[in-house]
Amino acid sequence: MKALVLAGGSGTRFWPVSRRQRPKQLLSLEGGSSLLQATVERLAPLVDPSSVWVCTTEALSRQVQEQLPLVPENQILAEPAGRNTAPAIGWSLRSMPMDERDEVVVVLPADHRIEDHDAFRRTLETAERITREGDRVMTLGVQPVRPDTGYGYLELGRRLEPETGLRQVLRYKEKPDQATAERFVASGDYLWNAGIFLFRAKRLLELLEVHQPEIARGLEAIERRPEQIGDLYPSLPSISIDFGVMEHLDDVVTLPLDCGWSDLGSWDALAGILPRDANGNVTKGEVISVDCQDNLLYAEEGIVAALGIEGLVVVKTRDSVLVVPKDRTQEIRDIVAALEDNGLTPLL
Amino acid sequence: MKALVLAGGSGTRFWPVSRRQRPKQLLSLEGGSSLLQATVERLAPLVDPSSVWVCTTEALSRQVQEQLPLVPENQILAEPAGRNTAPAIGWSLRSMPMDERDEVVVVLPADHRIEDHDAFRRTLETAERITREGDRVMTLGVQPVRPDTGYGYLELGRRLEPETGLRQVLRYKEKPDQATAERFVASGDYLWNAGIFLFRAKRLLELLEVHQPEIARGLEAIERRPEQIGDLYPSLPSISIDFGVMEHLDDVVTLPLDCGWSDLGSWDALAGILPRDANGNVTKGEVISVDCQDNLLYAEEGIVAALGIEGLVVVKTRDSVLVVPKDRTQEIRDIVAALEDNGLTPLL
Repeated sequence: MKALVLAGGSGTRFWPVSRRQRPKQLLSLEGGSSLLQATVERLAPLVDPSSVWVCTTEALSRQVQEQLPLVPENQILAEPAGRNTAPAIGWSLRSMPMDERDEVVVVLPADHRIEDHDAFRRTLETAERITREGDRVMTLGVQPVRPDTGYGYLELGRRLEPETGLRQVLRYKEKPDQATAERFVASGDYLWNAGIFLFRAKRLLELLEVHQPEIARGLEAIERRPEQIGDLYPSLPSISIDFGVMEHLDDVVTLPLDCGWSDLGSWDALAGILPRDANGNVTKGEVISVDCQDNLLYAEEGIVAALGIEGLVVVKTRDSVLVVPKDRTQEIRDIVAALEDNGLTPLL
Repeated sequence: MKALVLAGGSGTRFWPVSRRQRPKQLLSLEGGSSLLQATVERLAPLVDPSSVWVCTTEALSRQVQEQLPLVPENQILAEPAGRNTAPAIGWSLRSMPMDERDEVVVVLPADHRIEDHDAFRRTLETAERITREGDRVMTLGVQPVRPDTGYGYLELGRRLEPETGLRQVLRYKEKPDQATAERFVASGDYLWNAGIFLFRAKRLLELLEVHQPEIARGLEAIERRPEQIGDLYPSLPSISIDFGVMEHLDDVVTLPLDCGWSDLGSWDALAGILPRDANGNVTKGEVISVDCQDNLLYAEEGIVAALGIEGLVVVKTRDSVLVVPKDRTQEIRDIVAALEDNGLTPLL
């Protein structure tokens, strides 16, 4: 099996630690490996680093190479511009040697967190077998543990294999409202969409030709004139693999993944998975807290000192500090927009 | 008139901006002059910098010299150790040339803020005349503008000069509770103790001999063997001029000072005197605030970004950030103690 890791993201949700030049997937938010490194590390021994491909951006490719010294350099692809996942996957698959395109490829986002690596690998192993044997297109959906309104959902259909839990995917559901999310989770017929896909490379390229012919033609042109990729790639349609391909298929199947998955979408989400002290505070780095409760106190450099505060996220980097209530960390984009409006781009 | 500026303080109330090696009086909390520089600047033209003496500590004397280039270097005295104000004043007066000790000296703390410099100078001018003409010992008390429980008070006695407001000081009152403070202010018979004193140098040295003979003898010993000051000075009794001398006198007089005085005792006090934006936020340095109310957001270096917070003090320096509710800024000492307990002395 090959793995294709999508590492082109440029999120701002972890500002000020995440920056345009150092987005979330390159960060070691908990200490230790970065999210990107952990994504590759947890594949072993199922997928060797020599069989890992990474699709990232030109701005990040050098850092990706540094973080993944065991991944062959020619398998770290740098997009001239982000065009969402359908072009990224198509281009990456076409970059693989022709005689290897019968193999199963698992596509993985580079910036998610998985707690139980063994459980993840067991499911992945089963998924690889099912994909290979049936020439399937699969997605791994995550068993929901709460009615989360921040994730997309997969609506499930027929049960195909009681022993593995394999089910048909009926359709993709955008982020639901609270009542809908509760109904989804109670029904047992929905999984969180984790953006993990499996297919044979050749099969997916065929599907792309059928459902996204403009992307397919664009990728052919790039193959003929690779020196013009800087002009050609940015003009590809920008569309996700979910909506560009998967939505058009009626035979996508899924296995439920139950492995402590999180997309780590916010500081609050990070606080939710890190260990808490007796006062409910999560701390990282040098932190002094006096009479504080239920905060995330995060010092990337230097020290965070807090007294008498509750329910806040405080993050310090060398040049910046962010203070925001935990339940409003989704609004960091407003801070980032204000930085941009004020010409403070060096801080982005 | 000479001025003696007491600049040996080592407060921690403005941590993380104030440090042991850079205490409050050396800071420019509002921008512009430091509190020490402002203390000297507002004396002109009543007292020329050439007539200013400064008593500070060995650790700070170089910085004091740099901040006050117009004050003669030999008039910047460096205590080997802090022994409170009675020894500091006694030693400083004995360092003045013998033939200048008939002059009036005004003693001023280096770390207070005064808004109306003209009003301050007018009162000081009157006080100098009264001190000189009557060989008085005076203190300048501040007209209270609220029942503050953070200040000591002077209890006033007989009205001596209706035209200047000169009154007798009956006794010194420690920081009162709220009810007592309200009674004090309502009565019109109390002023805030601002630690500003006037006397002829010779007169104060005589009083020191009477009321603090051990200090007087110690200072004589230092005069005889100046090379041994490092051993002798630290063994002087540590006592304030208020309790060591003033409390023993029954003829101390005062003029009320009405000049927008503040001892800037906390971040909250600083927030109280700086201009606020439409949302009640006081900001200094590079600050981005979104939906924030009634905060002090202070960036000495880099940026403070805040969203959705209220009533907080957030202060960022290069290496540290402090977050504390405005009404608990007095407790910063607990943070400083915790830093010390954790061996983080470089941050003090």
